[in-house]
Amino acid sequence: MSRKLSPDERAAQLRELKDWQSAANRDAIERNIEFADFNEAFGFMTRVAIKAQEMDHHPEWFNVYNKVRITLSTHDANGITGRDVELARFIDSVVNRD
Amino acid sequence: MSRKLSPDERAAQLRELKDWQSAANRDAIERNIEFADFNEAFGFMTRVAIKAQEMDHHPEWFNVYNKVRITLSTHDANGITGRDVELARFIDSVVNRD
Repeated sequence: MSRKLSPDERAAQLRELKDWQSAANRDAIERNIEFADFNEAFGFMTRVAIKAQEMDHHPEWFNVYNKVRITLSTHDANGITGRDVELARFIDSVVNRD
Repeated sequence: MSRKLSPDERAAQLRELKDWQSAANRDAIERNIEFADFNEAFGFMTRVAIKAQEMDHHPEWFNVYNKVRITLSTHDANGITGRDVELARFIDSVVNRD
């Protein structure tokens, strides 16, 4: 099981994850991403799905057409862990590559 | 552009789509589906995504691990049209096949 990040660790990580915000009502981080169209949005989701399965760590996400909202949190730890940071970094690398 | 269903048409269609409910705050229909795991859930989403692209009619959906919540509505018509019914039937056929 992953360890929940300390407040200092969490703050330091979030400073580096510039495109992510703290969720309003829970200990989680969120990012909204807009793509050119549904094809790009779902292609992105497919890449993240494969990575998530490999990590056995899955996002919560909402999609409508070209928009994707992703929420990351670690249920077992009831908060943000290094695994959320790792998945967030992967997501950013996929988005920035386009 | 698809025509919004009349109240009678809408009621008749919804009687046949037994696993779908009217959304609470808007003219849309919703279905919650639970799969065995993330692999099955995202596999289902991939089949629906390909169909949606073919129809040029896309769902709003939320996924976390093995759960998928789908909302169908036709933005252009500001309500439910025959295209939502067609996509709902396709979704049901994929779910019932497993």
